[in-house]
Amino acid sequence: MPRGAKVRSMSDPIFEHRFRVALHDTDAAGVLFFAHLLRHAHDAYEAWMAQLGFPLDAMLRDGGLRLPLVHAEADYRRPLRHGDAVTVRLGVAGVGGSAFTVAYRFLDAQGELAASARTVHVGVDANGHRTLPDALRRAVQPPQTRLA
Amino acid sequence: MPRGAKVRSMSDPIFEHRFRVALHDTDAAGVLFFAHLLRHAHDAYEAWMAQLGFPLDAMLRDGGLRLPLVHAEADYRRPLRHGDAVTVRLGVAGVGGSAFTVAYRFLDAQGELAASARTVHVGVDANGHRTLPDALRRAVQPPQTRLA
Amino acid sequence: MPRGAKVRSMSDPIFEHRFRVALHDTDAAGVLFFAHLLRHAHDAYEAWMAQLGFPLDAMLRDGGLRLPLVHAEADYRRPLRHGDAVTVRLGVAGVGGSAFTVAYRFLDAQGELAASARTVHVGVDANGHRTLPDALRRAVQPPQTRLA
Amino acid sequence: MPRGAKVRSMSDPIFEHRFRVALHDTDAAGVLFFAHLLRHAHDAYEAWMAQLGFPLDAMLRDGGLRLPLVHAEADYRRPLRHGDAVTVRLGVAGVGGSAFTVAYRFLDAQGELAASARTVHVGVDANGHRTLPDALRRAVQPPQTRLA
Repeated sequence: MPRGAKVRSMSDPIFEHRFRVALHDTDAAGVLFFAHLLRHAHDAYEAWMAQLGFPLDAMLRDGGLRLPLVHAEADYRRPLRHGDAVTVRLGVAGVGGSAFTVAYRFLDAQGELAASARTVHVGVDANGHRTLPDALRRAVQPPQTRLA
Repeated sequence: MPRGAKVRSMSDPIFEHRFRVALHDTDAAGVLFFAHLLRHAHDAYEAWMAQLGFPLDAMLRDGGLRLPLVHAEADYRRPLRHGDAVTVRLGVAGVGGSAFTVAYRFLDAQGELAASARTVHVGVDANGHRTLPDALRRAVQPPQTRLA
Repeated sequence: MPRGAKVRSMSDPIFEHRFRVALHDTDAAGVLFFAHLLRHAHDAYEAWMAQLGFPLDAMLRDGGLRLPLVHAEADYRRPLRHGDAVTVRLGVAGVGGSAFTVAYRFLDAQGELAASARTVHVGVDANGHRTLPDALRRAVQPPQTRLA
Repeated sequence: MPRGAKVRSMSDPIFEHRFRVALHDTDAAGVLFFAHLLRHAHDAYEAWMAQLGFPLDAMLRDGGLRLPLVHAEADYRRPLRHGDAVTVRLGVAGVGGSAFTVAYRFLDAQGELAASARTVHVGVDANGHRTLPDALRRAVQPPQTRLA
């Protein structure tokens, strides 16, 4: 698994995404079905990438750089229930040669950490070579790391 | 299928809900997978019911009135694609003895009708009897019908 | 909505598909979330089309005939619950100029009808013209109708 | 994250589950959407638990032991595409005081490893105490570990 080289703590989120737990997010146990958390993480990732100027839909249509997801993980601390207002705090946990790691913290309405997740994305150009173009590298790099 | 008694045209929507077509909404044909349209319709229905003062999550937890969905249908006119900004216009197409019909129009970013849908909901009390309490009937009844 | 011209009763299913209601099919109300029924209907449709010699995945990759779904509807009679063994009986409800209608009956483990559904599919060739090639028309046409 | 204490290699799978990648499993990039892999992993887990004599649906209804999932992770090596026949090989990667770790290998039709995943489940009794009853511990314990 190609993790980003410089792993950072998630104390400095750089993007927020909100959602409400819908009926179809829950299961018969009354809580958010675990795999749906990663669906919401990806929604946050899509919104963040669009804000950075790298909208995934346009990238897919252009057929240039692709960013396949090669790893995903999640830890579940408190159940999220139907109707809960959730804030996703997204940060960059690492940027490596051709990959970057996005970290997500899911906070409930009381601000308590309900879950966390990570996804690792590898840049692949139209010829199938692994690469992370400079413009994208700068965009995903958190400000603090740029100053360092 | 217990449809609402007074079927109305959908020319007067009473609630709007917006979403962007996410990557996971689409399929290998490059368009929104048809069943996911009804998931988004239900999200609009949940948001509308909460605004009316009948949040589905609280109703489910209370164990009082339930509103099982007994019919759903959708017509697909134009494909919705990854990244499309969609507006759902929700209206009430009919209110009957113990049921009401919700209609949805899905408009793309150009305001063109991409799809439409309907869902029929039946009120069932804690004893399993079909009923639509007056407060809910008044809430879902569109204003024009109330004046008539 | 281009429905098939010759609408038939669903008394003669021609294909069976089975599934068990998974945890992720259900919601906090303890029953199968309505839109997921149509996902299962589509699974049955995919399996049937593959058996007929028209596998959807190969058709999509070839870029020849497409079969966009233009209408879907479902009626829900009895709740389906986590763990329920469901049999989907698929039949053809009509075949028209360029479209065909597939009907589905969802039976629970006791053989009781839990739900029914219909989907309408329109043939579109690589030039965007509506058409239903003869080979596909013959394949989806139920035997009884051919004899008549 | 309470991982199982004795971590084992996944060279000895104990259960197989098969599925075909459906249209709704894929996204506009033409491949299985990553979060859906975990949905299929959970389907394999449900089928395995039922075979062991611990059907999740009955456990949920009984309201006795619950097995909340506290961690999930997946690595994606090769894309899975619409129509692909996939075999999930499930094994137990560890059993600890009150938790066990299930490992999954997703093989494509050529037997190549397309993806792998892990889920960690914690036993919680009706009083909210963490526990793994002996019968369940014996059931999930792989034979080799029992002999050791």
